Amino acid sequence: MNVAVLASGTGTNLQALLDRVHGRDGVEIVAVASDKPDAPALDRARRAGVATASFLAADYPRRPARDRAMADWLIGGGVELVVLAGYMQLLSAEFLERFPDRVINVHPALLPAFPGLRPVDDALAYGVKVFGVTVHFVDGGVDSGPVILQRAVELPDARDPASVLDRLHPIEHELLPEAVRLLARGAVSFDPANRRRVVIER
Amino acid sequence: MNVAVLASGTGTNLQALLDRVHGRDGVEIVAVASDKPDAPALDRARRAGVATASFLAADYPRRPARDRAMADWLIGGGVELVVLAGYMQLLSAEFLERFPDRVINVHPALLPAFPGLRPVDDALAYGVKVFGVTVHFVDGGVDSGPVILQRAVELPDARDPASVLDRLHPIEHELLPEAVRLLARGAVSFDPANRRRVVIER
Repeated sequence: MNVAVLASGTGTNLQALLDRVHGRDGVEIVAVASDKPDAPALDRARRAGVATASFLAADYPRRPARDRAMADWLIGGGVELVVLAGYMQLLSAEFLERFPDRVINVHPALLPAFPGLRPVDDALAYGVKVFGVTVHFVDGGVDSGPVILQRAVELPDARDPASVLDRLHPIEHELLPEAVRLLARGAVSFDPANRRRVVIER
Repeated sequence: MNVAVLASGTGTNLQALLDRVHGRDGVEIVAVASDKPDAPALDRARRAGVATASFLAADYPRRPARDRAMADWLIGGGVELVVLAGYMQLLSAEFLERFPDRVINVHPALLPAFPGLRPVDDALAYGVKVFGVTVHFVDGGVDSGPVILQRAVELPDARDPASVLDRLHPIEHELLPEAVRLLARGAVSFDPANRRRVVIER
């Protein structure tokens, strides 16, 4: 399965994918795109010999045009699965329609709790004792698509976001490659009785 | 610490409290009240020699009057902590003001996800892979008060509510007595910087 990764930042989740599934388990990372031309994620891709491109908002009249260019580039490269790994932009409906059930995201919270841009801050403000990570399909909403994998971690004394993220990042780096591996293996389907429920064949 | 338990149903959480903390760790269960005169929870209380009373909605003009009578009975019995254990009624603001930061509840979900009356059904409909239990202080909202204890359980293949509840009940039966024990020991306080954050001194 040809996989693209979209990233805005340092690209540690991209690195986990490069280290853990790229070139095995039927997974090939063939493209990395960013909304930021100087994202360190692009350097990681180049070092791994993966094609890269930047799609800057400023270069396009509006988001759908930017997303159209990006989708064209990805489809031209034979991409079958799009993985958001710290990609800080919402994707247009048209982009998602071109990759039906083939865009996934990793989010550092146990969705549906704490969607959005500051999940760990929000969870700390709420005072939860259990944190976690979700890998989910991307739909038109904010972190609202069907859940593929989740893992929880109990941090009853947590008080600062950095130390919570230190505990969540290694979980992200396990779950996201695992989800890609399962998708490549054809082990992920939807429960016909409830398409919100993702069935994993293990 | 003199503890009252409010229950509407079979009273398995009451039983866990009777078995695990009643008469030790500084905890005495001194009263059990119900909104249902035939709740099996009342039989469990009587068998343990604990005073019981029923406060039926039909016997009072409206909820505040019922809650006032119940609070009078509890305070008359020297109650210092009120534990909701499957109590299916909302408590009036006045009742809560008479037990400030001294009413707790157990809820079979990782709040703030899935508050309300059907948390397990709602979680299954959403398609989560991680379920859990929360013990929290009761405030004026629905399952919205500060979290005291939480525990998660990964059930990635869950599909029916009964089997999820089978996994969650033993967790409730551990967490609720543990919360009562911690409160009796004076080990539970609020973070002055964020009163949503409950600090447990272990």
